[in-house]
Amino acid sequence: MSSFTPTPRSRARRKPDRAAYDEEAVFAILDAGLLCHVGYVINGQPFVTPTTYWREGRKLYWHGSAASRMLKAQGCGLPVCVTVSQIDGLVLARSGIAHSMNYRSVMAFGRARLIEGLAARRAAMEAFIDRLYPERSAELRPSTDNEILQIGLVEMTIEEASAKRRDGGVNRMAADDGWSAWSGVIPVETRLGAPMADAHQSAGAAPSPSLDLYEPGARLDAVLTKAARS
Amino acid sequence: MSSFTPTPRSRARRKPDRAAYDEEAVFAILDAGLLCHVGYVINGQPFVTPTTYWREGRKLYWHGSAASRMLKAQGCGLPVCVTVSQIDGLVLARSGIAHSMNYRSVMAFGRARLIEGLAARRAAMEAFIDRLYPERSAELRPSTDNEILQIGLVEMTIEEASAKRRDGGVNRMAADDGWSAWSGVIPVETRLGAPMADAHQSAGAAPSPSLDLYEPGARLDAVLTKAARS
Repeated sequence: MSSFTPTPRSRARRKPDRAAYDEEAVFAILDAGLLCHVGYVINGQPFVTPTTYWREGRKLYWHGSAASRMLKAQGCGLPVCVTVSQIDGLVLARSGIAHSMNYRSVMAFGRARLIEGLAARRAAMEAFIDRLYPERSAELRPSTDNEILQIGLVEMTIEEASAKRRDGGVNRMAADDGWSAWSGVIPVETRLGAPMADAHQSAGAAPSPSLDLYEPGARLDAVLTKAARS
Repeated sequence: MSSFTPTPRSRARRKPDRAAYDEEAVFAILDAGLLCHVGYVINGQPFVTPTTYWREGRKLYWHGSAASRMLKAQGCGLPVCVTVSQIDGLVLARSGIAHSMNYRSVMAFGRARLIEGLAARRAAMEAFIDRLYPERSAELRPSTDNEILQIGLVEMTIEEASAKRRDGGVNRMAADDGWSAWSGVIPVETRLGAPMADAHQSAGAAPSPSLDLYEPGARLDAVLTKAARS
């Protein structure tokens, strides 16, 4: 795979050993995530809006009400920074400075544009549903034109991106050896619970085939990665 | 408790029924989180940096290398937006538009300033450790002055904040009733794994008392909330 070319905007200055700019590293983190944080600027004021997103090639997509402030500001090509991150573990050491977190994160830069046209918007909505829940759009009542028009859809070509990752154990410091505080890693994992069927529509029904990956107890990052590649 | 006073900057326009501005709602979400996304602007370009944070009263704190770009830009009082969010569930409906997520989020606005002075920085570092792991700083090798000087600490008084939350089940639409796709909620939970002791320092040792709340299988949001109030 190819790499993104970092500029001063995206090059990691701190902990450069944790950074990567190749598509494989960036896409792996993006495809394992559900929630991104979109940063944008209105009249000099930064805003950070959390939203769900998906990726196709070097494009990121997200959606929201067609009338939202975020989409109005972003739709005209304003620069945005989209950050995706998750905590994988708490790293406990015997000194304050050696404490850390295991994590994965991506910062992606580009310009957001509203997707125009009913057909393109409908296709994007179905792509989003099917990216999360493979082939689910075929199980659903088709959206009306009016429903599609209520949803604003944004696309951003990733101009630059950097991935950062810390994993592994405690960074030992010789000065810490004589102390007794417990030292190690406590993993942090996000998992699915048991599905709770809607009492009116689906009482007693097994989840549809589009939810086959969503098994109770499965790790969300693994499910999302599999769904993205299915 | 008192409330934040929303202005156009922080008032939720979309889904106002999901929004709250009172300290109780805002603080509950902030105290259940570990990771925030800090948005700031340098030369018109937005950046969103993920980092761990903590709260005391109406102040948020976070830290990073004293030399980082984020802290250099934020330390002089630049406006920031700090967003904390988590997904609580996937909401599956029988039409695309009725799909949703259960989530909790806070957007907090203010100006970030570097904490100056060795004593104040040391106190903040210890407060951070003890907020996450109650009374842990007393278990640790004390930080040297040089270590404290390597860590930049930022404080931000929350000028405005809004909380948003969705929970509960599927929004039923009459038009969906004849369709068969499974409808319901799949919970999403972030939990702790079993602690992995450092092989050199803590092999076979039980976690220190500061980690009593960090039981394997515990929900991270519940542990953080308890730790914040202990």
